[in-house]
Amino acid sequence: MTQFTENGQRFTLTSPTLLPNSASYLWNEKMMLHMNCQGYAVAQYMDPEPRKYAHVPNLAATSFMQPEQPYFAHHPGRFFYVRDEDTGELFSAPFAPIKQPLDSYEFKPGINDIQWVVKHRDIELTITLSLSPTHALEQWSVTISNLGVSTRNVSLVPYFPVGYMSWMNMGAHFDDELNAIVCTSISPYQKLEDYPEIKERQDMTFFACSHTPDHVEMSIEAFEGQSGLHAPHALVSGNPLSDREAHYQMPACAAQYELSLEPQKTDSVHFLFGPAKDKSQIQETIAGHFDKGAIANKHQLATQPILSVSTPDANLDHVINHWLPRQVAYHGETNRLTTDPQTRNYLQDGMGMAYLAPDVAKQVIVTSLSQQKRCGEMPDGILLTPEATLKYINQIPHTDHSVWLVLILESYLNETNDWALLEEAIPWADSEERSTLLEHMNLAMQSMVEARDERGLPYILQGDWCDPMNMVGPKGKGVSGWLTQALCFALRRWNQISKPLNQAKWTAQFDQIATELEQACQKHFWTGGWFARGITDDDVTFGVPEDKEGRIFLNTQSWALLADIASPSQQTQLLSSVDEQLLTPYGVMLCAPAFTAMREDVGRVTQKWPGSGENGSVYNHAAAFYAAGLYHIGESERAYHILKSMLADPQCETFERRGQLPTYIPNYYRGAYHQFPDTAGRSSHLFNTGTSAWYYRLVIEELFGLKGTQQGLKIAPNLPVEWDKAAVSRHFRGAIVNLSYQRHDDVQEITILCEDGDVVDGELRSPEQGKTYSVTVLLPIETHTHDE
Amino acid sequence: MTQFTENGQRFTLTSPTLLPNSASYLWNEKMMLHMNCQGYAVAQYMDPEPRKYAHVPNLAATSFMQPEQPYFAHHPGRFFYVRDEDTGELFSAPFAPIKQPLDSYEFKPGINDIQWVVKHRDIELTITLSLSPTHALEQWSVTISNLGVSTRNVSLVPYFPVGYMSWMNMGAHFDDELNAIVCTSISPYQKLEDYPEIKERQDMTFFACSHTPDHVEMSIEAFEGQSGLHAPHALVSGNPLSDREAHYQMPACAAQYELSLEPQKTDSVHFLFGPAKDKSQIQETIAGHFDKGAIANKHQLATQPILSVSTPDANLDHVINHWLPRQVAYHGETNRLTTDPQTRNYLQDGMGMAYLAPDVAKQVIVTSLSQQKRCGEMPDGILLTPEATLKYINQIPHTDHSVWLVLILESYLNETNDWALLEEAIPWADSEERSTLLEHMNLAMQSMVEARDERGLPYILQGDWCDPMNMVGPKGKGVSGWLTQALCFALRRWNQISKPLNQAKWTAQFDQIATELEQACQKHFWTGGWFARGITDDDVTFGVPEDKEGRIFLNTQSWALLADIASPSQQTQLLSSVDEQLLTPYGVMLCAPAFTAMREDVGRVTQKWPGSGENGSVYNHAAAFYAAGLYHIGESERAYHILKSMLADPQCETFERRGQLPTYIPNYYRGAYHQFPDTAGRSSHLFNTGTSAWYYRLVIEELFGLKGTQQGLKIAPNLPVEWDKAAVSRHFRGAIVNLSYQRHDDVQEITILCEDGDVVDGELRSPEQGKTYSVTVLLPIETHTHDE
Repeated sequence: MTQFTENGQRFTLTSPTLLPNSASYLWNEKMMLHMNCQGYAVAQYMDPEPRKYAHVPNLAATSFMQPEQPYFAHHPGRFFYVRDEDTGELFSAPFAPIKQPLDSYEFKPGINDIQWVVKHRDIELTITLSLSPTHALEQWSVTISNLGVSTRNVSLVPYFPVGYMSWMNMGAHFDDELNAIVCTSISPYQKLEDYPEIKERQDMTFFACSHTPDHVEMSIEAFEGQSGLHAPHALVSGNPLSDREAHYQMPACAAQYELSLEPQKTDSVHFLFGPAKDKSQIQETIAGHFDKGAIANKHQLATQPILSVSTPDANLDHVINHWLPRQVAYHGETNRLTTDPQTRNYLQDGMGMAYLAPDVAKQVIVTSLSQQKRCGEMPDGILLTPEATLKYINQIPHTDHSVWLVLILESYLNETNDWALLEEAIPWADSEERSTLLEHMNLAMQSMVEARDERGLPYILQGDWCDPMNMVGPKGKGVSGWLTQALCFALRRWNQISKPLNQAKWTAQFDQIATELEQACQKHFWTGGWFARGITDDDVTFGVPEDKEGRIFLNTQSWALLADIASPSQQTQLLSSVDEQLLTPYGVMLCAPAFTAMREDVGRVTQKWPGSGENGSVYNHAAAFYAAGLYHIGESERAYHILKSMLADPQCETFERRGQLPTYIPNYYRGAYHQFPDTAGRSSHLFNTGTSAWYYRLVIEELFGLKGTQQGLKIAPNLPVEWDKAAVSRHFRGAIVNLSYQRHDDVQEITILCEDGDVVDGELRSPEQGKTYSVTVLLPIETHTHDE
Repeated sequence: MTQFTENGQRFTLTSPTLLPNSASYLWNEKMMLHMNCQGYAVAQYMDPEPRKYAHVPNLAATSFMQPEQPYFAHHPGRFFYVRDEDTGELFSAPFAPIKQPLDSYEFKPGINDIQWVVKHRDIELTITLSLSPTHALEQWSVTISNLGVSTRNVSLVPYFPVGYMSWMNMGAHFDDELNAIVCTSISPYQKLEDYPEIKERQDMTFFACSHTPDHVEMSIEAFEGQSGLHAPHALVSGNPLSDREAHYQMPACAAQYELSLEPQKTDSVHFLFGPAKDKSQIQETIAGHFDKGAIANKHQLATQPILSVSTPDANLDHVINHWLPRQVAYHGETNRLTTDPQTRNYLQDGMGMAYLAPDVAKQVIVTSLSQQKRCGEMPDGILLTPEATLKYINQIPHTDHSVWLVLILESYLNETNDWALLEEAIPWADSEERSTLLEHMNLAMQSMVEARDERGLPYILQGDWCDPMNMVGPKGKGVSGWLTQALCFALRRWNQISKPLNQAKWTAQFDQIATELEQACQKHFWTGGWFARGITDDDVTFGVPEDKEGRIFLNTQSWALLADIASPSQQTQLLSSVDEQLLTPYGVMLCAPAFTAMREDVGRVTQKWPGSGENGSVYNHAAAFYAAGLYHIGESERAYHILKSMLADPQCETFERRGQLPTYIPNYYRGAYHQFPDTAGRSSHLFNTGTSAWYYRLVIEELFGLKGTQQGLKIAPNLPVEWDKAAVSRHFRGAIVNLSYQRHDDVQEITILCEDGDVVDGELRSPEQGKTYSVTVLLPIETHTHDE
């Protein structure tokens, strides 16, 4: 596909119609903005719970960020109309709402901003969006140029609809002192006890201008008239905007700049757009963000990638060097804009930070464990503010949270070697005591160990990780095949980590339980071709060959590999089952066939559309664990194929429209490939996913094989056979390790050469802080998998 | 204004652009449909709580019907596109989404249906909407005619968007067997205990066709493409619709009929649109509603008006004879589509039914009182189904519910003379006992009497009737000026009703309390020019001359008149205060000046936009009580003026656009006349309001002066001076009373002549069931008010 060009750390999309749902995102500690290439936007900020300051034109429900966000004419957006005052001709940038063919169009998402360059009839607009470093605030700069040879009289009219704010006091006015359109509303309340919180909310939305507009329009109704945003009355009429206030009409911010642009001349104007509590706060915000009529500062990515690579795959380099660590940082810094992240999300997002900002990962571990009960049980969600409460899914009992503790701890220790953390005294949620992290972890494991039935299988209760069933075990009898494996895996990894420090009784016990779990898994879940997914309250085993839908699940195959449960012959069989039933041109599906109707006997599937969400989609988070399992058994070629499929095309609408703008990994691509081939491959366009942390870990520790150990840095790459070389710079414990990977005729196995340091048993021993190491890694011409 | 013509019981609007928000409504016992003249629609049905089967294109919040419903391109609607297959020309009927100028347009709301007749380029469409007599189901008939002289090849394409149904299993397919587009979804649930209710929901929406369409389109995305509903890709492209299923896309029902219409030929097609649980239910519904390819039956208004009038004001006649009793029946039959109506709404909506269907009113009285506590206290809402719970505002403590018991009982007894009801044994909510209705009522009164402070003033707690404050007395100290009067009124009226039957101790006690209340009202609330509104928990009296906002409230003036509290000089003063501060060209405002900000010291005003809702609007329900107060003191000219202002223009957008399509009384017109003159006069376009019952009662009992008594029918009209005559037919206790009102030179006072029956003291005594009476009422040339 040729519509993408690369420019520094930006990707460029040159047509808004080929991939109309293409998007990028920006965030700072207060907010997140999902910005579509056509001009549509979804913004959320913390107040203290997630809220919006620009809305659809009706009373909307509160929900998590939804995948496959539908756009429609009145979806919130940031639009810039240009009207030629001599001809009356009108166009809109970036593209919506008019969506007319433009002479040229570029959408250029960057790491710290988003840019468009649009040319039409000799007028060029360069539009740049960044966020405030400190506030929930969008910063917009628009440069308009006359590329022609005669003077052009144009009106530039940014149009930022604010929509249905509230049924209380909704309106808008222009404040001369602020040079801003101020949209007012009051959050409604009915219950007395809600008022103290409600009254503190930032119920205003403002649009501040660097230069005083000639005219403004302040309601959607007045701007649009009866005709629609593709031909808004206020602009089609040819008159100036009305300057009329909005009185209990849906507010909009439209500002008209009447410009007379001489040939080759340029003009610029800047805007701030965001929520506020009152006028004085707006005043302060403007003062802090405009500097001599321009944007003072922008939010910059705070963390630095620890890996910089150069491989034969330039797109992959770009993803690994820029976009992937950015997505990891987004998760780690924002916690997906919630005050009560699900425990497993919080721990995995934190795991990614072990690489970028280990202190953050440490804090995640400590915060989580300090909300653990003295009996060892972990809560369903972690409360991040004193006012936070467990909401939505966090009120539904799950049993797997502690599995993820082991994974983040492992990453953290790999990166930092900070074994002192295990001795740190950490409080409990329900006790005055403090205990060492070691004890917290032992009890977390023990608590999972105890939650098993007479067969030794872990209860599943009302939910499990990332599969479409949610009521397999509400009666307290149903068990999870996945958790049987995951608990086995967690215990074995925990023993690996803790053995040198832990009491022998714990290690021995966990070791024995792991063996029991392995045996129980073999006994109850092996179907002959793959591992089944679970057994319901009513003793129905599912994810088995007899099932018409949900016959095979990826997770019980991936974790059978990770937990060393699958025998070599089982490995072969399950890989072939996955290839046959789950692998598609778009990646590997979570389960198949996708459920097309509620199946009550296996737990009332959540019934997302077959192929979407967790119901048979190419669910990237699960795919990443499959890749991890494949690396674990030495199937590195397959693993690499899975990794590549995950970023094949996060922006695609349908497979035919696939391109390459992999600025993030979406949480899924549509699956149900054999059932609904027409829609298979569609991207969710949602970048909230535990995938990013796992992907980063796999790239660092498996693909380039650069995992930390107690002794130093283990170097054990799994480069794909088609790569003849790669160069990598790895920041590790304060040192910089520059590696040159080369295929070489003369070596039969991986050979590591280093003049600056000791390499023993494939490990660069004790790299020194501040020091730079040059390492040459020679690889045999054809790398074989371990099993071959 | 000339854009309206009257045709039988229909009004006709001849341009969709002059009054674009004009609407009518239909209902049956399962559903309600608010249908806008342009084609937009809001439909709700009971499942068992109110739900929608056609949605906006995003996850919407649940709310009560909102006033001033905003329409936008993707608002749910029922649209009919016509494409000329020879020229490619496209238009849409009724008007949206294309909104092109049409050759002719008529919107003709009827009592039992809604019709449009649209002509464009020699194609005429007659579109008729009715509801099923029994189901939550829309019935559409479209007749298309070729008015020209040559054969026309056209595609008729109804487009019914279904929108965001759910994030679970959303899709659509064409079912050949049903000849219907079936849109599927599953209501999401997270909590185990929600599932049994959720799984019974009618999660499908279907669009059944009387004739098999040539092609269909089943998603908004596919229909619209990138271009928008004003130029949908599927139709602009010139191709047939794609017949492609919707897979986790927002469903839409578009059906293409390729017609070859000879000159002067006509074709018809019919559709059913509504919710369903499963295919078999759809099948049954279709079988029951299509009869030989046409609509089998439609829902008809079940009740008959009891009053038919002919006055010099034809518009008013039409309202009184058709649209007003229809609005009364809507409220009484649907209870505003809730399972837990607010007690005061339920009682007032029931009061209207005392005239149309007294058995319903009786049932309302009995149902309400059987949910009363043994201590006399009434609940905040009445539960209408076994599963119903008190929600939203019904969880907020109010203190005035029992006032409204007296009003409905009075109406019921006036109409029926059914005094046996007072002796009927009725259960209690919290006791095994039953007690007579008389005792229930005594205790209801007593319970209000007890809820007073040391000054004898009734506590207000967290709310009061129809004013913008909602937290005047949460600490249990604040008191209500209005309720002081309303309780006085209720006690006095209750004594009037119950005196012959009641124990003397009750009568004497209530009489004394009423006097105390009158004195307390005078002492604490008379400001010198009008009555104040209340006193807060912190002892701040509000609704007083010193207040900058909320200085004067209508309710404490109206009820001072109704309760006989205001002395003659106070009457004069308060009428002049109302005229000066509350009266506007659009009617009388609820309070003034409207609150523009939260005023915490008077109870945290609810802060609707100043002039809207209860915050300073021309709130018709309150205006009706003012009219009642005016009639009570003989100010019939003023009262008539108020009544007329209430139906001045329920359809108007702004005053400049006022017309006459009074098919219902809206709950308010925008007020804040002195503060925001630009928007004053706008209609809420919401027909849910206790106004209708009161308006009907005032017209019957006051304007035409035909109130039932124990002896018969009291005849004491208050015709406006400009009427020289009027003819009225009144159904009363099984008799028909035909009255001819005439101004006559020779009479100095109202003179009643009747050859068929006894008229004593202005009462037609004991009219006999089945008999018709002819009465002549002679009126002096100029009627003076009682006080003059």
